[in-house]
Formats: sequence, C-alpha cells, structure tokens
Amino acid sequence: MPRRLFALAVLAFFLSMAAQAQDGATGDLRVRPAPLLGFDDETAQRQRDMERILLTTPQPDSAKMALRILTEEPHVAGTPADYATAVYVRDRMRSFGLESQIVEYTVLLNYPKHVSLALVEPTQEALSLREEPIEGDKDSADSSFFDGFHGYSADGVVTGQVVYANYGRPDDFEALAKMGVSVKGRIVLVRYGNMFRGLKVRLAEERGAIGVLIYSDPADDGYAKGDIYPTGPWRHPSAIQRGSVQYLSTAPGDPTTPGWASTKGAKRLARAEMKNMPKIPSLPISYGEAEKILARLDGPNVPEGFQGALPFAYHVGPGQAKVRMEVVNDYAMRTIWDVITKIPGSEEPDRWVVTGNHRDAWTYGANDPNSGTATMLEMARSLSAALKSGWKPRRSIVICSWDGEEYGLLGSTEWGEDNAKTLPGKAVVYFNIDSAVGGRDFGMSGVPSLRDFLVEAAGDVADPVTGKPIRDAWETAQKNSTKEKWRAEERLRKAQGQPSRPNEAMIGPLGSGSDYTVFLDRLGIPSTDFRFSGANGVYHSAYDDLTWMDRFTDRLFLYHGAAARYWGLVVTRFADAPVLPLHYSRYGQTIEDALTDLQRKVEDYNQDQSDSSKKLRLDVTNAMAAARRIHDAGLRLESAQSAAANDGLVATEADFLAPDGLKGRPWYRHLIYAPGYDTGYEAVIFPEPAQAVKERNQADLDAGMRRLESALSRAAARLEATPQR
Amino acid sequence: MPRRLFALAVLAFFLSMAAQAQDGATGDLRVRPAPLLGFDDETAQRQRDMERILLTTPQPDSAKMALRILTEEPHVAGTPADYATAVYVRDRMRSFGLESQIVEYTVLLNYPKHVSLALVEPTQEALSLREEPIEGDKDSADSSFFDGFHGYSADGVVTGQVVYANYGRPDDFEALAKMGVSVKGRIVLVRYGNMFRGLKVRLAEERGAIGVLIYSDPADDGYAKGDIYPTGPWRHPSAIQRGSVQYLSTAPGDPTTPGWASTKGAKRLARAEMKNMPKIPSLPISYGEAEKILARLDGPNVPEGFQGALPFAYHVGPGQAKVRMEVVNDYAMRTIWDVITKIPGSEEPDRWVVTGNHRDAWTYGANDPNSGTATMLEMARSLSAALKSGWKPRRSIVICSWDGEEYGLLGSTEWGEDNAKTLPGKAVVYFNIDSAVGGRDFGMSGVPSLRDFLVEAAGDVADPVTGKPIRDAWETAQKNSTKEKWRAEERLRKAQGQPSRPNEAMIGPLGSGSDYTVFLDRLGIPSTDFRFSGANGVYHSAYDDLTWMDRFTDRLFLYHGAAARYWGLVVTRFADAPVLPLHYSRYGQTIEDALTDLQRKVEDYNQDQSDSSKKLRLDVTNAMAAARRIHDAGLRLESAQSAAANDGLVATEADFLAPDGLKGRPWYRHLIYAPGYDTGYEAVIFPEPAQAVKERNQADLDAGMRRLESALSRAAARLEATPQR
Repeated sequence: MPRRLFALAVLAFFLSMAAQAQDGATGDLRVRPAPLLGFDDETAQRQRDMERILLTTPQPDSAKMALRILTEEPHVAGTPADYATAVYVRDRMRSFGLESQIVEYTVLLNYPKHVSLALVEPTQEALSLREEPIEGDKDSADSSFFDGFHGYSADGVVTGQVVYANYGRPDDFEALAKMGVSVKGRIVLVRYGNMFRGLKVRLAEERGAIGVLIYSDPADDGYAKGDIYPTGPWRHPSAIQRGSVQYLSTAPGDPTTPGWASTKGAKRLARAEMKNMPKIPSLPISYGEAEKILARLDGPNVPEGFQGALPFAYHVGPGQAKVRMEVVNDYAMRTIWDVITKIPGSEEPDRWVVTGNHRDAWTYGANDPNSGTATMLEMARSLSAALKSGWKPRRSIVICSWDGEEYGLLGSTEWGEDNAKTLPGKAVVYFNIDSAVGGRDFGMSGVPSLRDFLVEAAGDVADPVTGKPIRDAWETAQKNSTKEKWRAEERLRKAQGQPSRPNEAMIGPLGSGSDYTVFLDRLGIPSTDFRFSGANGVYHSAYDDLTWMDRFTDRLFLYHGAAARYWGLVVTRFADAPVLPLHYSRYGQTIEDALTDLQRKVEDYNQDQSDSSKKLRLDVTNAMAAARRIHDAGLRLESAQSAAANDGLVATEADFLAPDGLKGRPWYRHLIYAPGYDTGYEAVIFPEPAQAVKERNQADLDAGMRRLESALSRAAARLEATPQR
Repeated sequence: MPRRLFALAVLAFFLSMAAQAQDGATGDLRVRPAPLLGFDDETAQRQRDMERILLTTPQPDSAKMALRILTEEPHVAGTPADYATAVYVRDRMRSFGLESQIVEYTVLLNYPKHVSLALVEPTQEALSLREEPIEGDKDSADSSFFDGFHGYSADGVVTGQVVYANYGRPDDFEALAKMGVSVKGRIVLVRYGNMFRGLKVRLAEERGAIGVLIYSDPADDGYAKGDIYPTGPWRHPSAIQRGSVQYLSTAPGDPTTPGWASTKGAKRLARAEMKNMPKIPSLPISYGEAEKILARLDGPNVPEGFQGALPFAYHVGPGQAKVRMEVVNDYAMRTIWDVITKIPGSEEPDRWVVTGNHRDAWTYGANDPNSGTATMLEMARSLSAALKSGWKPRRSIVICSWDGEEYGLLGSTEWGEDNAKTLPGKAVVYFNIDSAVGGRDFGMSGVPSLRDFLVEAAGDVADPVTGKPIRDAWETAQKNSTKEKWRAEERLRKAQGQPSRPNEAMIGPLGSGSDYTVFLDRLGIPSTDFRFSGANGVYHSAYDDLTWMDRFTDRLFLYHGAAARYWGLVVTRFADAPVLPLHYSRYGQTIEDALTDLQRKVEDYNQDQSDSSKKLRLDVTNAMAAARRIHDAGLRLESAQSAAANDGLVATEADFLAPDGLKGRPWYRHLIYAPGYDTGYEAVIFPEPAQAVKERNQADLDAGMRRLESALSRAAARLEATPQR
C-alpha cells in the first residue's frame, strides 16, 4: 500500500504542478479579477499580483527540513530541547530578514518524577506507561520522551477498585448512578474522546473518585477506524495520549496567575488558591494496558453507548480488578519561551494582524504542533520574499510561536494577559494554526464575521492532490452536514411565509483547546482556527513523529505547502484590505438562529414538564431584535465599503464581553461563545443562558438573558453609529 | 449474577402475584369498567368477567413443560421430529377439548447432504460449520442438529478470493464499486443484519458473485452487545445463524407453487422456472470462523459503516484469503404439517378470527418459535377453561400451528393459498405470534386500523416484573422514538395554522419474515404481529434451547404467561365484540402522513438535481383526498358503533389489493404495505411509487400513483357506503 500511495502522491504532485503552471485557481482570477472582500479594484489587483509570491514560495523540502529540525527531540514546554526550538524559530525568522524576539514567562509546570501503574488484584502485574519501539521508526525507540503522564495532575499514590465510566461525561456518570454504581473511593477508568480530558478528571473528582485512568479505546482512534501504526496511521495498542488535565473551561493559562501575566515579579497564587487543577492523581494509558483492567471488571454489562472496540463485553465494575497508581510529579516554576516576530505596517502600524502557532509538544510533535510551525516558517519565508519584492503590509503583522500550549495555552494566554491593555485596540484579528497537517481534510472555525473572508481565501488555494480549491470539499461536507436541518427550516419558513434561505457552508464556532482562546474569549478579538486533518491515531503519543508524517499523512509535504499558502493569503489580505472584511450581517444572522435554537430547547423542555412550576420562561424578543439590528447594520456597512467603518468594525467583537466575566468562571468573558463548562473543546453558544437552561435555573436564565441582551444592544448601537463613509 | 437475577425474579414473581391478588390491572377496570372497543356496556362486562379466566389460567410450569417437550429434539420442517411436534400440538389441543386436525402440504425442502468450508490460501484450514458443545447445556452437545446451511441454497462447489461487502445492501455494493472493488467471480463475505438474508445472496448473485458466506458479526449480536453465551445471552463465537435464503420479497411459500397451494396433485414449477431461489451456493458461518477469513483480506480499509467488532481493521479484500465452499443439498419434495384447531362461533360461525404461530425450527427453537408454541398452548388452555365455564365465542376462532415457516413461510402461505377463495370473506383478522418470548420488551406491529384495539388490550395485561401494564413501557419507548419528528411536525403545523396533534404511540408496519405475510399482503386481511423480545444472540443457532431460555430470557416463564394472557384477550375480544374494532380513521391518517413523507422525499431529491429533466413529478392531491375520506368515514363509523358496519369494515382492507399484484412481484398484492424489495423484513409503504422514486422512473411513479389512488378511492367509497346503523 505505501508503494501505491507513493505513486498516487507523485502523480498528484505533477498534476498540481501542472495546475499551477496553468495558473489554475489563481490564474483564472487574475485574468478576470474577482473583487476581493475589503479591496477596491486597484488594490485587489496589487494584492493578487503580490500573492503570486505567497503561492509559489512554500516548498516541500523546506517545510520538511524545518519539521525534521523541530521534531528531532521531544520538546515539552520548559525543557532545554524546547528552548532550542525557540532559538531555531527566532533565528530562522531573522534569517528571513524579520524582526524576531524571544519573550519569556515563568509558569508552573510538572514533569513526571515517578509514575507507575499496576494491577494488584486478581493478579500482580505492572502495566506499561511507555510506547513500544517500532521497527523502522527510530524516534519511537529513543528513550528521551516522558512516560505517560498528565500535565497538572495531582500527586498521589492510590489503590482501589475500578469503575468504568465511558467518556466520563456528566451523562455517563448519571447512567452509572442509575445502575447503583458509585465511583466514590474508587479509581475511575474512562476513555478519551468527546471532551477535554481535564474535565473528565474534574467530574470524577466531584463524585468522590480517588484517581482517574484515561485510555484511548480502539473504537475512537484505533483499529476500529483503520490500520494501526506502523501499518496505517491509527493508534497502536501501546500508544498513550499524554496531555493536560487542567480545568480548561474554568480558566486556561498558568494556574498561578489567572487573569494576569506570569512575568517576573508577578503576584502568584498559592497552590490551594488555584482553581483550575485537579486534586486527585490521573494517568493516561494505552488500550493494550487498559484491556487488562477492563477485562477484569465485574458488575452488569455496560449501558448503551459505553461499549468500545475491545473484543469482549464491557462491564461497569467494580470487580476483581484492583489497581495501584503512583503519580509523583516534579512541580516547579519554569521558564517558557514565546517567539514574537513583527512586520511593521506601512500605513496603519498600530493595527496588528496577529497570528500564531504553538511549538511545544508532548513528544516529537510532528503533527501536533510542528506541522504548524514548519508551515508558519514557510508562510513567513513567503512574506519575506514578498517584502523583498517591494511589498509592504498596510497594517502590522505579528507572528507568534507560542510555548506551553499543551499544559493549558500558557504562552498565548500569558502574552495576551501581558498585553491586555493594548491588544484590544490594536489587534484587528487573530489567526490560529495548531496542528496544520494531520491529513487532507481542510477545516476552519471562527467568529461568523470572518466567514465570508475565510471562504473567499479558501477558493484561491488549490488542494495539492485534487487540484480543486480547498474550499470545495470543505463546502460540500459542510452543506451535507447541515442539509437535513436546513430542509426542515425551509419547510418551516415556507409555512410561515418567510423568504427562502440557501443552504450555505458556515464555519464552526470556537470552543477551546488552542491558542485563540485568550484572544476571543478574554480580549474580544475576532479569531479563527484552521487546519488540514485526517486519520490520526498518534495524537500526543511517541509515534507523533516524522516517520508517521512521512509515511501516512503528508508524504510529499504538499499539504504543508497548501497550509502555508492559505495562511499567507489570509494574513496579508487582512493586513492590506483598505476596508476590514468583518461581516456583521453574518454574526447577526448566526445569533438569531442560535436564539431560535435556544428557544426551542426551552419549549421542548417545557413540553416534557407536567408540573407547570418546573417550566422555564424565556423571552428572546429583545435579544432577537438586537441581533436583527446587528445584521441590518452589518449589511449596510458591507455595501458601503468604506474604510471609515474600520474603527467600528474592530471594536464590535469586544462589545460581546462581560467585563466581570461569565458566572462562575470570570476568566472567560465572551457572552456568545465559550468552551462548554463540561466539554472544554466544544463551544457552547450563549454560555450563561445555556448553562441556566441546563441547570433549570430561572433566575440565572433571566440574568443571563439580560446580560446577553445588553451586549447585543451595545454591538448593534456601535455598528449603527459606525460611519458608512 | 445468575443468583442475583434469580432473587430478583423471585421477588418480581411475588410482587406480580400480589398485584394479581389486588386485581391490579384487571381489577381496577372491573370496579370502574372502561368501555371496551367494539362492545357495549353489557357485553363488555360479560367479556371482562370471562377474561378473568384468560388472565389466571396460564401457568409457568405448564408453559415450561410444553417448551421442554417441543424443544427436546431439533425439528426442522419435514423431519420426523417435526411431525412429532405436530402430533403433540394436535393431541394437546384435543386434550383441551378442542377440535384439531393436521393439514399436510407437499413442498420442496433441502437438507444439507455435504457442506464444508475451508481456507485454501494462504494456509490450508478447514473451517467449522457446527457449534461447540457448552458445559451445562446438554442440547448443545447433541449431534442431531444440522451443520450450518441455508434453506433453499443452490448446490455448488466453488473456490475463490473473498470480498467483504458489509451487510450486503445495495449501498454496500455501491460503496465497493466506488472503490473499484468488484465481486464478480469472487466469494462475497457479508454479515447478518439489516435485511433478510436471501436478499443478500440475490444482490451478490446479481453482481456476479460465485458464492456467499454470511456471518454474525459480534458488533450486531455478539460481545459488543453484552456477555456471550453461556455467561450471557449474546452470541458465542461458534454460534451459526442458519436460515432461508429464499428471495422472500419476490414471493414466499413453496417455490414450486407460487400463488397456489402445494396440495397433492397440484401443478408444480420446474426448478428453472422458480423465481425465488438463488443460483449460487451460500453458507452461514460463525464469527469465530469468519475472523480467520476477514483477518486475511487485503485491499483498502473498509468504508464508513463497514467495520464490525472483531479486533482489527477490516479490509474490503480481495487478498491472500482464498476459500473453498462446498454445498451439496439433499433436495426433495417433502411433507409439512400444519395443525389447525377450530372453536366454532356461536353467532357468526362464518366469521373467523385466525391466529397462528409456526412450530418448525432450525435447531431446538426454544425462542424461535416454540416460546410462541408453548404460549399458544397456554392461550388455548385458557380458552378451553373459558369454554368449560360456559363462554362461547360470538365468531369462530381458528388457531394455526404453522410448519415450514423457516424455509419461507410455507405452512401459512400454502394454507392461505389453499383457502384463498374463502378466507377473504371469512377471516376478519389474523393475529401472528412467532417467537413469543425472547426478552421482556413488548412490541407489536400491524395495520393501523388495529392500533387502538391492540393498545387497549396491552393496557389490560401486567408486565410480570414491573407490575405495570405491558402497554406502558412500549408506549414510552414508541413516543420517545417519534418525539423528534413529532416536534418538528408540530412546529410546521403551528406555522401552517393547522391544529396541534398529540405524540401518540403508533404500531409499526408489517414487512415480512413471519406468517402474517400471506394474510395481509396477498389476501388483504387485517393482520398483526406481537412478541416480547430482548437480548438474543442465539437466533437460529444450536444454542436456541431451553438452557438459554431458562438462564437468561424467561427464567420463571413469567413472560410466557404474559404473552398467553395478551393473546387470549385479543383473540376473544375480536371474536366477541359486537362491532369489529377496526379503526379506519387511523388508517387514513397514517396514509396521509406517509404521502407527506413520500412527497418530501421527492422534493428533497428534486432539490438536489441541477438538471431539471431529472426531476420527478409527483402529485399527491388525489391520494391525499382519498386518504382523508378514509379517515373521515372511519371516524363516523367509529362514533356510530353499529354492528351493521361490520361487513364494510371487514372488506375494506382487501380494497388495498391490486388483483394482478405488484409490478415485478405479482405474488404480493398490497398497494400500501409490502416487504421492501431489497430489505425483506422491513416494510416499504406504497411499494410501487416508492420503488419508482428509488429508480427515478417517472412512468412507474405515475402508474403506481394511479393504482394507489384507485385503491384508496375504493376503500373510501366502501367506508362511505358502509351503513352507520
């Protein structure tokens, strides 16, 4: 199969080159220049001409060389190997003629001092916390990566019976409780997936568990998905998903400085005051080892949805299996190194287009995150080439290589907090790329105001294998996923005599789990995230290395090139567009649709309550009216296309912030988007009212709606007051 | 666990006895007699009094004894052991004082003469076609059951490469074709599930396969569902699902006499003329053996939805695996034995309430079908007790013990064809029970006109463990399954200014796969099917025996009792009700809803066609109007409650028949319900238009709609002309 894949890729490469030679995606547009959002005809033409450099500069060999250097050693945040990657990135940026600096923060980090896991009943057996070496993959045989451990895990040595709690979601624990199975005083075994791992630990801890083991079930990224490493890209039985167990949805960043920067001399919280770290120990394990525990659980068969892909009927436990886990961490204040590279703007130097990718990795990080770092360097190299050709960005471009993302978005959060006073006025957008290349499926998320801009740019970059714009497959997949709902809505609109709406490909909302978090959720800066993803069973394991990338994921480094091209386009277009391409009509419409969804959720809930005192009251009239005003004002500004609107457009996102933060988690401030409190990765829309509905709390629902209404009114008023010329 | 289960069951038994003592479900109704559908106050009171006998007569010991006798030996249709069960049922009926006769038909049947399966590449290995003996289950260790084989399989010895085609649905073959994988000249390995097995063979044969292996994947009824036999009720790695590969959706019944009875001297088709039998050999295999083939397939990883629960990534093949299958059948004309028991009606002897269960089994048949046979005998015993107390049914009751169901519904089909002239005038209803007890979940299907009647009766029989009416859990499950759709429809109705409709529990439509088929689909007699089902991984294997039933399924034979009670109620109520409780308002409404669904399907399809010449035209106006007339006329008759309506009510179902049969499969005649041509088990509503939409055939769609419209008009006119007093 590798041989066939290679042949296919070579063919694809030549096809793609041929397409470039004919000026495929870009050429058509040059001959008959389409208007670029935010540009007039003349500036668009200039931009398109410059973009030829961005589209032709990225090179496979160059990206691969960078990735080889970046992933030569495991480089966990705060280690000497991590520092070496910071120096490499800075020096490489400087070699492109760009101004680049390392910015340090001092943060709390743990490394594993002594971690072990053993079955103590019914038999004594030590369980492995390391990956097996794989023939032909020298990195996997290296001894320098850490054993399986969790960032920010509590120390502890515990022995106990085991209960299996599926993904560890609130519903999973509820299903166990309904069966009369308690996790109190027990070790909870959960599988990865569906939510941020730290919240699995928090939910188990809240229910009295004494320890948590998190394993990767083969159903989720192992053989049930396809051939496993090294035959295919999916998870090997010994592969361990390391990762942070920070309570991400409470607050990201250094736990000692929630809400302010971890600079030298900064005020620090004592351990007892830190709200976003577990109090019970946890460990990540492989399915090869988890199987030995799972197969020894008694109790009833698991409820619907709990069964994974190991070849026996799962039981919830407890039972004969008793395990001992030992987690002793080396906790210390350590230095992390962001690398900040700046290209000054020629006309609006105090307007910054900020973009970033993290650099630290749990092991080698070939996919996560250094496919992004290699791509960023290629993107920067192409900007450098454009600069050398005489181009100057209208606004400043700030390219950030974040450190400490894996522990809890440390580098970006501390930098964002460090610059919290100036960034909201300066930064007009934040573009994030984490793991740039984990496959061939292009995807993007972000605030709705950036949707049109992002989609437009995705129409101008060719997929290296199909030769078609990367937009196309994305658009088709998005439309298919929303078709059912759209059809139902169309029927409803027709019945209500409302005009028809097309089924459009929208971009998904941002939850958390990468470095856009501080920019969007705390500072109110329009943000996005994009990547190529695909078959990936090496996530956070020792097999996330160049061999895996080279064999299965981006053999010819073509997708590194595509990612660098797209990245270059969006950064420079946003830097150069005379009118900022922020479309608030999209934002308003999205808010209206989400309000309808919330209203229906409450109606559905009410319908199920026979006791009318349990029904919730929700009136979305005011919020809906404000959302409509946002839509209408946005639309007027979009057709006026005046640079006079820029100040208003830039400031609007921050109108959605609550200065005192969200109820119960003040670090988060955005009243429209937040990571779900019990999900972490996934976004919740209208976090305060949504949480109130979940908790059936009328007072919170009323308060949340009032805060939402005033945020929406603020934004609407601002857009209405924004000059159209 | 068995011990705990036993304790629970004992407790439940006493609770249930306590409930009976308080006259739980029945008593309340006697104190404050609810009107019974089709009865006036006086006759309802008499009926309720008599029903005490039906509710108290069935006994666990008696049911268990019958099941022990019936399942003592494997009794495949046409064997001496099968004949012995016929004699047992007849004699037992006679011992109850009932008139009972064996009715013989001569049909084509095959037994395995020599079947074998072997891997010939990459290694030589014979694969087993028998279950392993299980400690503590003496039946499983007996040698008298047949090896795994398929009823009506073609003879053949073939050797070939193997391709894995998931469930063998049209979409599955299409997915393979899209990957460039052909089944031509190859042996197709498919898994059981989703459709009748014979159609898997037909679809493979149509695509050029030379043989078919069908295995039970552990994802579908093995360890992925729960503990496997003998630890739990799910499928053991060696358990084989035997079964018929007749082309059921073309025609059931003896292949030598499609449409007429297999009586002595009947005209017979030659083998080449038989349309409902495969031409390529097939075999059923266990997952223990299938694993050895599947693990040796090459080619790409399977597409979405193909992966099962064996512990490796599935490949579509072909590859190194080459197998040799040898299927040599002993085909002969053989005798089968229906047992027909009649209780003459006192007032309307020429109106028959027909009910039946099949008796033949692939092995022991503890669940399938003899839990139904044991239940039927208990039901008959309770009727006998009622007769002895002086009760006489108003209409005649005909209780049928069918033979040859497993090969293709032979006994019922031949009897139905044998009595095709008289049954449509005589039979007012057909109640089917196949495997009466395979768990604790009550379920029922049938024509919509019987919905209210069946639900009412389910309110009068207690679940032996919960003590609540068996209706309740069924109703909750049904409502939950339709809630989402109902909510969307309510929103639409509200928007259209239409009145709200409650979310009601409806009964599912009848497809095929059991003995109601000839009654509904060919003769137009209102039919139903009901059963208790649950965790079952022994279906059609040698482990479907008393040990399995006793250990996991109906330990105290309480559910055999509940099934016998329900059966007794529905049979006698239908026999005694002065006004036949057939509610055509329900039928009309169901047809309207299904027409709306069909229309939307066409709209959705059209919306996806950019080429307008590919769009389909569908006008449901006339059909909708006729359905509304059926609804309205039904409603008038339901409120009039006059016995004068009985003739009209009985005749209406047959108005839905096309005398010349459905396009392409003339044996089937019902224009509203038929087994899906490519599913077999599952019903398709409006089979002709639905097939035309599937095939994008405008001419067929028009013709189908015209035939449907006139059937609906016939029924509407009849109901409108039916006297209301």
